[in-house]
Amino acid sequence: MIKIALDVSGGDYAPLEILKGAYSAFKELENTQIILVGQKEKILSCVQDNKFKDFDLPIVDASEIIAMDEPAALSVRRKRNSSIVKGIELLKNKQADAFVSCGNTGAVVSAAVLGLRLIKGVERPGIGIVVPTKTGTAMMIDVGANIGTKPNHLLQYAVMADIYSKKVLKKENPKVGILNIGEEETKGTEFIKETRILFEKAYFNFIGNIEAKDVYKGVCDCIICDGFLGNVALKISEGLAETVGYFLLDYLRKDFLGKIGLFLAQNALRKFKRKIDYSEYGGAPLLGVDGIVIIGHGRSDARAVKSALKVAREEVERNINDEIRSKIESVYAKIG
Amino acid sequence: MIKIALDVSGGDYAPLEILKGAYSAFKELENTQIILVGQKEKILSCVQDNKFKDFDLPIVDASEIIAMDEPAALSVRRKRNSSIVKGIELLKNKQADAFVSCGNTGAVVSAAVLGLRLIKGVERPGIGIVVPTKTGTAMMIDVGANIGTKPNHLLQYAVMADIYSKKVLKKENPKVGILNIGEEETKGTEFIKETRILFEKAYFNFIGNIEAKDVYKGVCDCIICDGFLGNVALKISEGLAETVGYFLLDYLRKDFLGKIGLFLAQNALRKFKRKIDYSEYGGAPLLGVDGIVIIGHGRSDARAVKSALKVAREEVERNINDEIRSKIESVYAKIG
Repeated sequence: MIKIALDVSGGDYAPLEILKGAYSAFKELENTQIILVGQKEKILSCVQDNKFKDFDLPIVDASEIIAMDEPAALSVRRKRNSSIVKGIELLKNKQADAFVSCGNTGAVVSAAVLGLRLIKGVERPGIGIVVPTKTGTAMMIDVGANIGTKPNHLLQYAVMADIYSKKVLKKENPKVGILNIGEEETKGTEFIKETRILFEKAYFNFIGNIEAKDVYKGVCDCIICDGFLGNVALKISEGLAETVGYFLLDYLRKDFLGKIGLFLAQNALRKFKRKIDYSEYGGAPLLGVDGIVIIGHGRSDARAVKSALKVAREEVERNINDEIRSKIESVYAKIG
Repeated sequence: MIKIALDVSGGDYAPLEILKGAYSAFKELENTQIILVGQKEKILSCVQDNKFKDFDLPIVDASEIIAMDEPAALSVRRKRNSSIVKGIELLKNKQADAFVSCGNTGAVVSAAVLGLRLIKGVERPGIGIVVPTKTGTAMMIDVGANIGTKPNHLLQYAVMADIYSKKVLKKENPKVGILNIGEEETKGTEFIKETRILFEKAYFNFIGNIEAKDVYKGVCDCIICDGFLGNVALKISEGLAETVGYFLLDYLRKDFLGKIGLFLAQNALRKFKRKIDYSEYGGAPLLGVDGIVIIGHGRSDARAVKSALKVAREEVERNINDEIRSKIESVYAKIG
């Protein structure tokens, strides 16, 4: 039985959408127990109000809530009874195999690093998000766990993304690239050039620098960058996808034939929206901490929550952290 | 008479699309002379082959071509007879009022800085691109002229973008923001925090940090960032817009009603494509150099070239460089 702790208080649509997602996963996933972490009374009344049938999941009471915009480290230190801190404790005490939260990302990262510590050899955690590309998917890491990144951190991200891509995304020989302003070796900051030298010594499938315009083309499986750059790259994509959808509807509605076209194409357009809408994606693994933590999008609805729970389950089954531990060790043994 | 020198050798579709754009602008723009800079023989035969009527523009022969991927500074030093170096010389010698190139961006920046020098008080040039937003447009600067940026450079970008937005984009009280991973003062790198302190002392309409997800929402008119970050933000947007278009067509074509919808909506979709396609946009001003230089997209077609020529014309008329000079001086007098 795989046990997944779920933060019911975190996310813009908590607790209802979180509970709906849990309910849907509970019905679908075999051999999986979902542990609800949140305000017990609220959860019980929400379950009753919404008439979830046979929804009898264990609840770990967590009276406090860390808001989406609270200062991360401070709130984790102060709110010991929050769903985020309690959820991480369950992991730490082996009462859960994974923890999923759509709450305050910084707080989840802080709580995880404090509570679980990092995998030996990993100096900074990284959030790896799986984005859709023309040819399938790619993992971009780090998208915001850590700023003030050093070349060695990027090397560790690369090792982790490589293993994640092989074991969880089932890619055979994932291509690893450094996000940069040009492909050429001479392009970019000193930081990028130093990182490149490190990467060339390691033994994953390093293809060199990758330009931002090629991220969604699917030419690279693991796109490595510092958390500041990755966060901006991810968030600007998210904002653009939303704006593009807005423009599309706007142009179609303004045009008579466009309106009819819109009506006829609504099914295809719905699928299209799902493809480009980040909130539809499952969770992003927080890699490098010694435990399985999945960070869901703040705007997660029930579908996204279910998808994050599935990602967590998959990761538990693949047991990637042991492999990360030994690979990090062998990479550093090799490059000295 | 406003004189604009145009690099006919630069760009992915040079020389034909460049000449077509010049021809179209020549027919449309009053009181404007376009000076063609490029390989004279090639230009003449291209004009003849394509039967441009009454297309009698002055040509400045530039026998060398700087390729799109050549090292910037080196090629500028070596190829003194290239269209880029010659075009900048025309500006320097007051034989032209502006220079437009869709060629190697780095080479244009290098040639401009070497040939024209910077405006007094400006330490680094910045490329400011005007992007579409839900509410209109916004200028993002720098998108790649300069890496290794310092907080003071960002302050200078802000002053320049503010003036450009007022004079050329005709915005009344443009909002200036710093691109960051969060809105809060406490968020971001030390570099961002230092920049914020500088901005608070200056006297443009500073609204604080702006998150990447809000760039296309239109909440800010002047989005200030270092050239590395801005280049990645711009290029990832470009790549995403292209991929989104690809997914959209793909989903519509796979669906029977979607196909009919696509047929009916083609007019609206064409407008939509134009709205989100970067290559449709005119040129981006290279701000901070002592002369008017417009950098067109490498993939510019005739329409984009014409649009870049119009932007150049507008900038000449607004004479923004004198204002930048005096504003930079007064800002530094104020903040000390």
